[in-house]
Parts: sequence; structure tokens; C-alpha cells
Amino acid sequence: MAGSSFGTLFKLTTFGESHGTAIGGIIDGVPANFPLDIPAIQLELDRRKPGQSSLVTQRKESDTVQFLSGIFEGKTLGSPIGFIILNENQKEADYAHLKDTFRPSHADFTYEKKYGIRDYRGGGRSSARETASRVVAGALAKQVLNSIGIKFSTFVDQVGDIRFHSDEFFALKEIESNLVRCPDKNVAEKMENLIREVRKEGDTIGGVISCVIKGVPAGLGEPVFDKLPAELGKAMLSINAVKAFEIGSGMESIAMRGSQHNDLFNEDGTTQTNYSGGIQGGISNGMPIHFRVAFKPVATIMQTQASINTQGDKIELEGKGRHDACVVPRAVPIVEAMAALVILDFYLRNKSVHL
Amino acid sequence: MAGSSFGTLFKLTTFGESHGTAIGGIIDGVPANFPLDIPAIQLELDRRKPGQSSLVTQRKESDTVQFLSGIFEGKTLGSPIGFIILNENQKEADYAHLKDTFRPSHADFTYEKKYGIRDYRGGGRSSARETASRVVAGALAKQVLNSIGIKFSTFVDQVGDIRFHSDEFFALKEIESNLVRCPDKNVAEKMENLIREVRKEGDTIGGVISCVIKGVPAGLGEPVFDKLPAELGKAMLSINAVKAFEIGSGMESIAMRGSQHNDLFNEDGTTQTNYSGGIQGGISNGMPIHFRVAFKPVATIMQTQASINTQGDKIELEGKGRHDACVVPRAVPIVEAMAALVILDFYLRNKSVHL
Amino acid sequence: MAGSSFGTLFKLTTFGESHGTAIGGIIDGVPANFPLDIPAIQLELDRRKPGQSSLVTQRKESDTVQFLSGIFEGKTLGSPIGFIILNENQKEADYAHLKDTFRPSHADFTYEKKYGIRDYRGGGRSSARETASRVVAGALAKQVLNSIGIKFSTFVDQVGDIRFHSDEFFALKEIESNLVRCPDKNVAEKMENLIREVRKEGDTIGGVISCVIKGVPAGLGEPVFDKLPAELGKAMLSINAVKAFEIGSGMESIAMRGSQHNDLFNEDGTTQTNYSGGIQGGISNGMPIHFRVAFKPVATIMQTQASINTQGDKIELEGKGRHDACVVPRAVPIVEAMAALVILDFYLRNKSVHL
Amino acid sequence: MAGSSFGTLFKLTTFGESHGTAIGGIIDGVPANFPLDIPAIQLELDRRKPGQSSLVTQRKESDTVQFLSGIFEGKTLGSPIGFIILNENQKEADYAHLKDTFRPSHADFTYEKKYGIRDYRGGGRSSARETASRVVAGALAKQVLNSIGIKFSTFVDQVGDIRFHSDEFFALKEIESNLVRCPDKNVAEKMENLIREVRKEGDTIGGVISCVIKGVPAGLGEPVFDKLPAELGKAMLSINAVKAFEIGSGMESIAMRGSQHNDLFNEDGTTQTNYSGGIQGGISNGMPIHFRVAFKPVATIMQTQASINTQGDKIELEGKGRHDACVVPRAVPIVEAMAALVILDFYLRNKSVHL
Repeated sequence: MAGSSFGTLFKLTTFGESHGTAIGGIIDGVPANFPLDIPAIQLELDRRKPGQSSLVTQRKESDTVQFLSGIFEGKTLGSPIGFIILNENQKEADYAHLKDTFRPSHADFTYEKKYGIRDYRGGGRSSARETASRVVAGALAKQVLNSIGIKFSTFVDQVGDIRFHSDEFFALKEIESNLVRCPDKNVAEKMENLIREVRKEGDTIGGVISCVIKGVPAGLGEPVFDKLPAELGKAMLSINAVKAFEIGSGMESIAMRGSQHNDLFNEDGTTQTNYSGGIQGGISNGMPIHFRVAFKPVATIMQTQASINTQGDKIELEGKGRHDACVVPRAVPIVEAMAALVILDFYLRNKSVHL
Repeated sequence: MAGSSFGTLFKLTTFGESHGTAIGGIIDGVPANFPLDIPAIQLELDRRKPGQSSLVTQRKESDTVQFLSGIFEGKTLGSPIGFIILNENQKEADYAHLKDTFRPSHADFTYEKKYGIRDYRGGGRSSARETASRVVAGALAKQVLNSIGIKFSTFVDQVGDIRFHSDEFFALKEIESNLVRCPDKNVAEKMENLIREVRKEGDTIGGVISCVIKGVPAGLGEPVFDKLPAELGKAMLSINAVKAFEIGSGMESIAMRGSQHNDLFNEDGTTQTNYSGGIQGGISNGMPIHFRVAFKPVATIMQTQASINTQGDKIELEGKGRHDACVVPRAVPIVEAMAALVILDFYLRNKSVHL
Repeated sequence: MAGSSFGTLFKLTTFGESHGTAIGGIIDGVPANFPLDIPAIQLELDRRKPGQSSLVTQRKESDTVQFLSGIFEGKTLGSPIGFIILNENQKEADYAHLKDTFRPSHADFTYEKKYGIRDYRGGGRSSARETASRVVAGALAKQVLNSIGIKFSTFVDQVGDIRFHSDEFFALKEIESNLVRCPDKNVAEKMENLIREVRKEGDTIGGVISCVIKGVPAGLGEPVFDKLPAELGKAMLSINAVKAFEIGSGMESIAMRGSQHNDLFNEDGTTQTNYSGGIQGGISNGMPIHFRVAFKPVATIMQTQASINTQGDKIELEGKGRHDACVVPRAVPIVEAMAALVILDFYLRNKSVHL
Repeated sequence: MAGSSFGTLFKLTTFGESHGTAIGGIIDGVPANFPLDIPAIQLELDRRKPGQSSLVTQRKESDTVQFLSGIFEGKTLGSPIGFIILNENQKEADYAHLKDTFRPSHADFTYEKKYGIRDYRGGGRSSARETASRVVAGALAKQVLNSIGIKFSTFVDQVGDIRFHSDEFFALKEIESNLVRCPDKNVAEKMENLIREVRKEGDTIGGVISCVIKGVPAGLGEPVFDKLPAELGKAMLSINAVKAFEIGSGMESIAMRGSQHNDLFNEDGTTQTNYSGGIQGGISNGMPIHFRVAFKPVATIMQTQASINTQGDKIELEGKGRHDACVVPRAVPIVEAMAALVILDFYLRNKSVHL
């Protein structure tokens, strides 16, 4: 099975290279008769798009989504929703120098090896531009989930060694109060300064995004392979530049004792602590779900690097083009979108557990 | 889709509760005409089984796998391989006290909420006993992969705060040289001491397993959702008690600069460093694949804990039964098995990229 | 994806060769907390088994199903149900002469070409023995469906040129009133005589099975590829020896005019005729579903035939062993089982159309 | 799983309503580095499009396919190919009278029951317009298959009671020599006259399409559920208005004896007859594959019919709009497209049978 589809009952399939005619997708399995707020979907896309602030890449794309099917008089038909986003900023000349070049830690080499052909313009299919389609589907999924009381809070938790490190639920307003998308203004300011400094050096830096989901009913997740953290982990690790995923206590659990780590019950079935991150035995327990996603410093840097060409000759690779010094601010809506795809899919799958 | 299947072309489906008649599975998509070493599969199973050393749970199970189909005169037929492992150590009385009890940080509560019914004996379907079936399929996959030069090295990398932290490839003999399955004897001794200490307290402790895979050809992994780290991550996060997954540089990448983190090419296409962990753009690049899996301290402790029953009344839960003070030594073959399932599946999927 | 699984939410995976240790399967996605009538499942299996009457093959198999998981105190757990049926009648010697022989119109040649290896004993995986596992899963599905008012009536509609040709719903008692399983005793007698005559000649003859399903609610079937007749057709055409499938008016519709064939509505949404066979636009409309399945004369005959061996040399193939002169009486429970798998799967899938 | 995807390794997902903005699809799993002949794909689409002759519906659509991704410098990239076809002939007023009306034997009633909402304009998602997307993907698949020697011959085999009834392989030129697409000119003339007569009456008539595929290597098809005739059958029964499917001897086999029906081998492994239709045990045997697909008389007639509205009141439904008096001439490329999707998918799946 080719890898361009995600989900089982609520399923997104995407297409598109960074500098082809368009990117887009098909969302199949959308619950019928649901009133969609189309402008709200566009707003999510605007949160991801390049050029939105001085902190991010200056590629100019309006990133306007056009819906082609599946919606009738403002409501979902239950049939698949096809959509496209045109690629407007196709400066082919910008990429001519990459035709025979393998950039370090990009997908140039592996695509060439796998397919024997590659669209070298801006990374082609391997570009993070594809994630715009995920944001469209995720924004739609979020609307559906919001209507049944499931809410998302996704924010920047760390940039380089500057940690916020929270598993609280923050309102969108707080998250959007600064360019970094970290709800704590002081921490955000430090993060922003670090990003600007790194940018000035033509370099990049990694970071972490936290996602907290509340209102998820107990029972979502399918034993034994499709456990909720397994699918969330897959969703996150399918995002460009992601290097690690933690659920609940994550790495911190390693050095803990079971007697500390066990989440004792309250009489109403809630728990006094939430080291489990809202999931036990792979199934949601009704507590807030919390996970963290770590991003590496992206590979495109504005410095000259040694590399090789497709013939295996040594070359000097100049740093030019546009780039994000730190990808996490723009990745916030992507993480949230993928989380929403997972939760809605499990919500629908769980309906078949009983007649 | 119910969640008991893993893989697309090479696909394992498992069944079985901890204290039912048997556990087992069906392996579909096995390449035909491959000479199987059945005793070698049993040996892998023996590495996972309880009661193998003083360090692990003393549940007595012979864990003998019986193959029922798909093998003819020692070779695979290409048809599905059905297998079962009988549950021999079914002491029902041991679990009677759990009938109406929710154990903290177990799956008791979430299974009850999801299904409205639950086999309370030893955790039923949520028990890690199910992973024995994964080890069978994984051992078979490893044999197939070994025949084409792909080799696995999986070992304990951390127990509590005692870190080994290596991404080297160690021979099985080194790994098996001690009960902990850490290739460094000094570190292993410290780990062993810690586990014994924790065990004496009736408590549990977490740990980390590293897996290094060499000989993987460039080209495995399917953009964009079925990236190699995404499927590896899903595979690992579907294992009981796993809380985090890192590929390559993982968490360490967060505070690195792109200029440091980028893996520069040698002229032969290998790279000078391997922060990427053998994967770029979601596709293997021919370098060793390296990932780490973090396990929480398991929830079963030999201490009295406060909990609730199914009516929501407070109860005292005594710590009795058998348990692993630290799950990572026994989880080594499970991690390796899941990795083998992923790699073989991608190997087969990659064959369809070209006519 | 290997082909041993059927269904999406209610999914059967089978394993087993005709003369291996056992056949069996895993049923995943079973609705939880459903009280199963195990003996009733065995009864269905008895309807399919060889040696049940003078009309069918005399292979002796007790065909006793053993359930290994997924059932607790008589109820389904929601976890996968593993089951096995031992192969008892393994007379290896009976099949030694087939080791290097390709029987005409069997799967010997194609399995050899596909896999490069083949279990020649009784056809191995290609034997209709595998359908016993389908009957187990189908019988379980029928119990679930019966509980929500969906009922099946499956019977022999034609043997050779003796046609019954009905789309009425007959009670099981009527169908089981004779060995042929045709509800009309006069027609059944003619069919039986024909089968005995053909058998005496060491030959075989084809036939047709009709299936009528009532109580199916409107709305089952998933546009556009997974239309209800498409999945029913696939289910039936996956049964050994099936050569054709008709839904509703089927072949008869070809020469009809639209003005005749259109099913006019009654005011309550039922229709005055049912040429559509209960399905319009691929979705059930609440009227009885009706389809017909045509079986060829099976290839095993008790006559000497010219054939070739695996070296491509001409040989004479003696007709020996056991066979069914007409497969349709025994295929009745198989057709019904596959129909039940399809309907239950669509029933569960349909639950995700609305939140 | 929603039903808008077809195939496992070579997978088509479609979207689009008859009178929405556009229809289209995503083809995933396309073998990489294959030189595409885009105009040839458009030609296939032209064979299906309305208004192409006096024999078919006069809806005016240019049906121009636009490819949006997955193709680079004329070659496939191995990434998904997204494409759209704009809906140009959107005369909303033509359909206003259908808003509250259920047309007999259409999908109006069943879509309303299933989804609780429906795009009534031209049938919305249930319109055969969706099959244009199948023709695009099928034409692409055919190019790939042609390059490895697999060829298709698809033609009209019957209209009403006028039978051609052949399983020979005819060249495209012969098939396209007349408007009906029956390779025998005399039969074609009779068919054409019948269609014109039926059309004059404002009525419709059914028909049969035959498909012959040569050059298919032995070994395609996956036991036991994904047998080649099972997937071909599903593919065909997912096409609008299809009521029956026959493989090889089909219905004729019913009254034959096994001794007649068995296909005896020649020494080279070919067979003297081909009642099996090129498939034995669900796997291709290297002989030409032959199947037949029966279409009912389509439901849209130019006559006044009794019907009901969405309130359940009796109404008179006038016959207006555009329609095909017999759908089979235009369905020829659709049948061939679906066949190509199945064969290419099985070709790719078969690659994983051996390492």
C-alpha cells in the first residue's frame, strides 16, 4: 500500500509536490449532515502558512483552499471532500542548482535511491508543504470534534534549550498572543530571541510542541496494535523533522518507581495524577490526553556546506533560498491537525464496538 | 477496523487473552519457498518467556509455539502461517479478587468502559502475554531478513537513571552475556543491582531499549504518512508500557543547530555522522537505523495501593501475584520482533515502486 | 496485502491447508458483550461438513470447532475470537500420486506457478476445506444479525438444467427438508436424481444457490467502490467453483426495458416490485436483498483424464479419492456465511456515517 | 472504511458529485519513472464522455482531465497523481424538480436514508459521472500494463436480446468501427437499431459487455478472499447499473458436466479449452482472461412515472433531462478501466510473493 493515506474510517489521502501545479487531498468518511465553517478552516491554514511573521520563512503563498465536492448548501454530504491549494510561488530558477545535488539531511538522496527520479524543486513531495493538506483535514476534524465537546490546546513547549514544559490546557488566545506560540510570554520572548539569533547565523534550531486534548471520552483506542498512543505516535512521526514522541510522563517515567507513577483513582473514575497522559492500556480513560513532539533543527541552513552531487563528486552547497530558523511555531497547527485526525478516526471506530 | 492486525503486505493478526485457552496468531504474506528454522523461533520465544531468570516474573509457562499451517516440508508455502501457544499457568483463583477491582494505571478501567465486559484474569487481552505472538512472527521475519543481509542488535540502554546509551551494533552473544541484556557488563551489573533493590521494595522501575539495524538498503519507507520512523514508532508504542520513542538523535536534536546536526555525505553516499538514525525524509538511506524505546515502571507492584472497585467505592488493593520489577530485559525480543515486522513489510512494499 | 482477510470492521482472517495440522481463523471486530450460542455455530458447521449424507463426499471429518479466545462466560469480549478445526482425515498416501501432477481445472498449476512450491495433499490451501472457517465466522455473524432482526434464507435454486428459480424467503425447516436443500420437494427430488445419476457416471454437475435476506435496514453499502452488490459479489466469487453472480434481476434485466424494470414506490417507501434486489445505488433500500450464485461442475471427477506432470509430460490421471458430484447442497451454508459477513460488516460501517 | 478507494498497492481514490465544482481523484502507488502518454489518457476519457455520438446522452462536457501532481518532465515520480475534471454543464434549474422527489430505481431514496442529506442535482455522488475518474486511472494503468505485454479487448456483447456473445480478442479498431462498440458490424447494426427504437419510445434497455485480457502472466490473484475473479467481480459490480458478472464459462457452466468443463492441459501448460476464463483457484493461469458484465436498463426514462416525494406523497414524475437509452456503448471504457486497475494491482501485489 502506498503511503499517502491516513486513517481508517475518517481517512485523508493527499497529493502534491512543493512546486507542482497544486497540492490537495480527499477526505473520505466525513460524518454526514454536519454544518461546516469553511472560513475557520482557512484560518487554520493561515496559521501554518509561510510569510505570516518575521519569524518564519518568507515564501509567499496565499494558501487558499478550494473545496471541490462533498459539501452541499454548507453541510457535509457524507461523500468525499476533495480540495486543492494552488502552488503560486513556483520560482523554478531558484532550484535549478539542486537538480544534481544531494543536500545533507534532506530527502534528496533517499528519494533518488527509492524512485530513480525526483522532483528536485523545493524538495518535491518530501517538502513540508504537503502538511498544508493535513491542516485542512485536521481543521475539519476539529470542528466535528468540538461539536461533541473535544477541545485541543497545542503550543510550543521548548525551543533549543529554553523549556516551557507544561501539560496544561491553554486557550487559543494565549497561544496566539506571541509569534512563537508559547503561552508564557516571558518564555516566549526568550524563545523568540533565540530564534532570531540562530536565524542571524543562517542556522536552525530544534524544539518541542505539546498537545493537550480535553473532553475525550473513555474508550477510544483499539487494542492491541492500534493503541491510541501508537496511532498518535505514528501521526506525529509522519510529520517532517520530527525525531521523538512522548505520551504522558514520557521520558520522565524511566527513572520513576511504579509506586510513584501509578495514577490513583478518585471515586468518580478520574485519577489524582495523570502520568498516563489520559491513556491506559492503549485506550483513553477520560482524563486529558497529553503528548509531546520533538523536532530537529531543520536541514536547510543559510551556510555553505560540503556535499556531493548525484555522480558522487564533492561539491560546495551554498545556503540560499528561504527557510525557517525554527520550525515549531509553524508546526503547531500541523501537530494539532494530525491529533484531530487520530481522535476523530478513533471516535468513529469506537462506534462499532457495540451493535 | 479492529486493531489486532499489524502490517500491510507482511501482516500479523493476533488473538488471545492472558488466561484463556491459548494465544496465537496468523502471519499472512510470508514470502514463499523460504526454509524456516523452527527451533530458532522457539529460542526467541524463550528469551521473552517468564521465569527464565531470577530477575523476571516467575509465572511458569513453557510457551511452546505450535505451527498449524503454511509450512510444508520445512519451507513456507506462501499461504498464511497459523500458530498457537497454550496458556498453561491458568490459576483462576489468583485473580478472583480482581473481578470487581480497577487496578491503578492498568487497563482494567478502560477496557470496562470501552467494552462493558472484561476478562479480569491477569489483564485478559491487555496483558503483555499477547506479545509472545509478536515474538513468533518477528523471529520468522528476522530469519527472512537475515537471509538478505539485514541484522538486528537490540539491548537494554537504560534502567532507571543508569544509562548505557549507545547506538553501536552489538553481537547477540554480548547482549546475552548477562541477565539484563545490556552489552556492557559493568553497566549491566549496576542495572541488575538496581532491579533487585527495586524488586525487594515490591516496586518497579522503568528503562530504555535501543535497537540498531544494519544492512537495510536505501529506499525503505513510504511517503508521506507511512514514513519509516512513523511505522517504527507505531510498532513500538503499541507495546505495553512504552511511553516514548526516539529515532536517531531523538530528544538530543532539540538543542542542536542544523549546522551540527546535518549528516554530511561521503562520496559513496554514506554519511560522516548519523544523527538521522539511518532515515531521511522517512526513507532509509543505507546507514544503520537506530531508535530508542522508553518503558515506564510497570503498574503491577507488590505494595498495598488505594483504588476503587467497579461500583466506585474506595478499596485497598493488596500487591500479590507475580511481576517484573523492570520489564526491559524481557522486552528486548519484543522490540526486536516489532522492528523486524516493520522492516520486512517495508522491504516487500518497496518492491512495487518499480514494475 | 495478502488475501487471507475479509471485511473491514468485522474482519475474518483464515489459515490452513486441507491436510495440514488444522484450519482456523481469527474474527476481529466482534461487537462486545454479545451472548453467543456456541452449539448453534457447530450446527452450521455440521451442515457444511463432508459425509453428512449419501449425496456428498464421504471424507470423514468431525469438523469440531474449538474457540480459543474472545469469549468469556458465554459472551463476546470485543477482543478477537481465535478458533481452530483439526484436520483428522489426513490420508497422505491418498495424495502421493498428485505430487508431480497437475489436475485439469484445479489450482495445482497456478499455485505452482505463483509460489514455486505447493502442498499437493488434497489441494492444500486451495481446497474448499478452508470454507469451514468461513462458516464459523458467518454463523457467529448471523447470530448477531438475527438479534437485530436480519434473517437469511439460502437454498439450492438450480442443479444442472433443473431450475427452481425463486426469490422467496423460505424457512430453514423447508430448506432442510431434503438432502439437496431446495425448498420445493418435487424439484428437489429431480435434482437429487440428477445428482445421483451424475455421480454414478463418476462425473460432476453445476448448480445455483439463491440467497434472500430480509430485515436489512435501508442505508447499508458504501459508495462508490464498496457498493453492497460489489462486496456481496466479491464474497461469493471468492468461494471455490463460483463462476457467476447476479443481484436482483441479474441477467434477466438485460432484455428488459427501463419502464418495466423500474421499481415503483409505495407511499411508505417500499417498492411494488423488487428487480433491484433490495439495493439501489449500491445501498440497501429496506426491501429483501436477493442474489444468486452459480457454481461450475467441480473439477474432481472419477474418470480417467489426460493431463501433464510438473515436467510437462503427458500423463493419464485416474479418478480416485472422494468427491462431491454436485457441490451446491454443501455450499448453501458457505454462501449464507459469506453473506452474513458482508451484511454485518456494512452494518457496523454504517454506524460511522453519523456522529 | 469509507468506500471511495479501490485497490491495495495501486490505489485510486475518487471524489466528486455530478453537479459540484469538479470530480477527480488521487492515484497512489504508481510505479515510478514510467513515461506517461497524457493525450492517450484524454482519448480514453473521450470514449466515455457524453455527447460523443447520436446514440448517447447529449449532456455537454469537455471532460478535460488536468493532472496536478506526481508527473515530472513526462514521467511518473512514484508520488500520488492528483487530477481533476471540471463540471461544466451545471444546469441547476434542470434539477430543481428533483429536490423533494425520489426517482424509481435511482439512488435518491437510499442516499436520503443513509446520509439524511443528498445533492439531488443529477444524482450527486451516485451519478455515473464519477466513473470518468476511473477511466483516467484505468487508462494510466493500461499504459503501464501494455508496456509489459498485457492487452485489453472490451466490447459490447449483447444489447437487449441481440447477442454477439464472443470471447475472442478484437483490436480496438474493430471495436471502434461503429457507435455501439460491437466488433461485428452486422450485429452492431441490429443493436444500434434497437437502441434507436428504444430511445424513440423514451425508454431504456440493458446489455452486456465482454472483456478479454491477454498477456497476463500466470500467478496473479491472492488466495483465498482476494481471488482474481472476486476482485474483478467487485470492480465490475461497483459500476452503476451492473446486475451480474460472469467469469469464463459463467452461467453456461451450470448445466455442464465436469468431464466437459475441465480444461485439459497441453504439454506447455496452456489448455485446450478455456472454460476457466484464464483463472484457476483464483489465480491467473496464463490463458486469456475473459469475463462478462451485465447492465440493467438504466432508470432514467423519458416517460411519466408514478413516484413519491420525500414526504411520502404520491407524485407524477415527468421524464425530462438527458439520458442514455442504452448505457453499454459508453460503459466499454469504464469496464476496461476497472479491469486494468485490478490487473495492475495484482501484478504489483504478486511481486511480494518472493523476496
